[in-house]
Amino acid sequence: MKPVKIGVIGLGNVGSGALAILTGNAQSLAEKLGFPLEIAAVCSPSVNTRELPALPGVLKTTNWREVVAHPEVEIVAELVGGTGTAREIIEAALTAGKSVVTANKELLAAAGPELWALAVAHGASLAMEASVAGGIPVHTVLRDGISGDRIETLFGILNGTCNYILTEIEQKGSAFADVLAEAQRLGYAEADPTADVDGFDARSKLAILAGLAFGQRVDPATIYTEGIRRVSPLDFAYAHTLKHTIRLICAARRTPTGLLLSVRPSLLPQSAIMAGVTGAYNAVWVKGEFGQDTFYYGRGAGAHPTGVAVVSDLVRVARELRGGARTSPFAHVQLASGEPRPMEQLRSSYYLRFRVRDAHGIIAKLAGILAAKGISIDAVLQLPNEPKEDLPFVITVEPAEEGAIRAAVAEMAALDFVIEPPLAMPIEKGL
Amino acid sequence: MKPVKIGVIGLGNVGSGALAILTGNAQSLAEKLGFPLEIAAVCSPSVNTRELPALPGVLKTTNWREVVAHPEVEIVAELVGGTGTAREIIEAALTAGKSVVTANKELLAAAGPELWALAVAHGASLAMEASVAGGIPVHTVLRDGISGDRIETLFGILNGTCNYILTEIEQKGSAFADVLAEAQRLGYAEADPTADVDGFDARSKLAILAGLAFGQRVDPATIYTEGIRRVSPLDFAYAHTLKHTIRLICAARRTPTGLLLSVRPSLLPQSAIMAGVTGAYNAVWVKGEFGQDTFYYGRGAGAHPTGVAVVSDLVRVARELRGGARTSPFAHVQLASGEPRPMEQLRSSYYLRFRVRDAHGIIAKLAGILAAKGISIDAVLQLPNEPKEDLPFVITVEPAEEGAIRAAVAEMAALDFVIEPPLAMPIEKGL
Repeated sequence: MKPVKIGVIGLGNVGSGALAILTGNAQSLAEKLGFPLEIAAVCSPSVNTRELPALPGVLKTTNWREVVAHPEVEIVAELVGGTGTAREIIEAALTAGKSVVTANKELLAAAGPELWALAVAHGASLAMEASVAGGIPVHTVLRDGISGDRIETLFGILNGTCNYILTEIEQKGSAFADVLAEAQRLGYAEADPTADVDGFDARSKLAILAGLAFGQRVDPATIYTEGIRRVSPLDFAYAHTLKHTIRLICAARRTPTGLLLSVRPSLLPQSAIMAGVTGAYNAVWVKGEFGQDTFYYGRGAGAHPTGVAVVSDLVRVARELRGGARTSPFAHVQLASGEPRPMEQLRSSYYLRFRVRDAHGIIAKLAGILAAKGISIDAVLQLPNEPKEDLPFVITVEPAEEGAIRAAVAEMAALDFVIEPPLAMPIEKGL
Repeated sequence: MKPVKIGVIGLGNVGSGALAILTGNAQSLAEKLGFPLEIAAVCSPSVNTRELPALPGVLKTTNWREVVAHPEVEIVAELVGGTGTAREIIEAALTAGKSVVTANKELLAAAGPELWALAVAHGASLAMEASVAGGIPVHTVLRDGISGDRIETLFGILNGTCNYILTEIEQKGSAFADVLAEAQRLGYAEADPTADVDGFDARSKLAILAGLAFGQRVDPATIYTEGIRRVSPLDFAYAHTLKHTIRLICAARRTPTGLLLSVRPSLLPQSAIMAGVTGAYNAVWVKGEFGQDTFYYGRGAGAHPTGVAVVSDLVRVARELRGGARTSPFAHVQLASGEPRPMEQLRSSYYLRFRVRDAHGIIAKLAGILAAKGISIDAVLQLPNEPKEDLPFVITVEPAEEGAIRAAVAEMAALDFVIEPPLAMPIEKGL
């Protein structure tokens, strides 16, 4: 069978990784497919000045239009990123009936449904395994592997930088700011860490996964998002006392009246398989109505893990092309629209952490506020040996609505002995 | 688009589960596909006497040939099991150009390549997600999700009964025989537990996964297989001292001179994500040359989890049928043949557990035997408070060839103070 030829646009981290795999793993790929997967064209602003693998007979250009227009190119790998040129590239390729493989999380979160519709209209495929949780084939799992199920809940650890920082706080007892500075020094965190530590990167990924898992289009801006800046070594000490740990959890829950979506630090039982996700790893935990719980784990980023996702998509699309298929490019033939439910409607147990100045009747006042909102206390915890002028302690509460919790927290924050607003985190059960 | 119609043959555990999902989840499946997935025929010896979901207009028969011959049936789900009638059903369906979905581990381990070739020859698909690790979509992952990678190592926990028994020994400190008896009482283990506890079930599954991961046909009988009967609470106590745990590990390692394949109890670091697999769960850990480590976890059996695998295969094949594809039914277009390498060539650290009568110079004699084989001792461990007439202790050794370990164990077993042959288990690093 004749080779399938590929055009690679973008030679940054992911593009270089994909190129290294396409050249270094060519024989194994050809054995799997029964025909070779060949590079016909590569495009990058630096294509003429940088070191590349030997690519005899391959068009090297700085003009992406030449790649899309190349008569032999059947699949275009868009690895430029961003929502500008990348969108032009994908639209031009699909309109020309060429299939596209992309790693572009931002663009898919913003305009995925339009691009999928364009692919269908032109009989092409759009594959996007690399866009979420680089090394974990979660797109393939949701699209094909467990497509027979009806998903109820999806939890993800989708930002490796946050998971690395939280694990360092947990294992070394260092403060957030110190761990962040060290992560920046080591290149694990960006100079401007906002997209990672404030949860915005994770929320784009959750929007894409919600589409795959529930068939619903989600605007990332509608997802309740809270970063990890307030999580301290002390919170881990209390969480451990409760036999839990803390992770930045992307949660999507199907309810009869809509999806509940959030990105926020949350407590997980130490016995849960997801609690074992440390360092820069990513993971996805899914609970289906029929298949119950499954769990997927791997590296969230990196040139080669993400490159594997790109090349695996190329393998699938190439197999489909030579098999005569016009594949529906998404897990659901059509995405429903609809706003997520307000986070105030989440019902959960919560962890409330306080910093107070020592005073009389603290617990009585706090308990009174909770009781007035109908919230029941589960436990009050205070670890020993802490200074009287900045006294931390924790109250855990039985399942309540987040709206009531927020109202209570706001009232508590106004009390004169409270040093900073209480930190409220949901305690996830049943995983 | 017109519905894809299915014939279900076999209404045991898996067949009933698949039927429940096809009927109970029909709307969600139709939304995913853009057309309905409909049952046209069901076949079972008990089809007329048992309770079934309401299936108006569906052919109910005790003769599987009527299902295969049914003019509307495009996909046949073979859920009979075994290697007799099941093979006849699959061959008849494929020869008629109908695609097949199967959960049949034994048949695929024995005759998978012939059946895949038959499918290709007749332009049909053969899908088998349900055959290994029921609830985990490991077939989809290896076939599509990480197909761009070149797999180096695959470790599986593939027998839920063994994992349940080992976890009970670990958590309750009960002896193997007691835990097995309790598992049989609860229905978690068969009256004849041999296929499970002696590793034969797991080895069929490893043979299938080796085909998927490495493109090599493996005869299950050529896999080194050792069951869990000798693992005791004491072994867990020593393993914990070493910050490890013990699981029945199915291992496949690619080496320049062939695959090394084994099913055997092995030590894993407690820090490894795989050490968190407890109870009747299954899991697969894969390390690729490019994507590094990924991990997949879920229920290994059960009507609904395995039913999800069957229905997910039906969804994929139905999508391919309506998309005009003739899909290659396997991860590799052709399976290579070849014997696995002898297990004596495995190089690993080992855990050696002894039971001895107290005597002078025990360690000196054992150390002398190890030294004569060029094996270096890493540590000698003896937990306190044990009777002098049956004294257990453990020696761990640095990486050595299993051939040398076996020769040393055989010599040690002949010593007069040794009560039973030493138990040798590999200590898995790097996961």
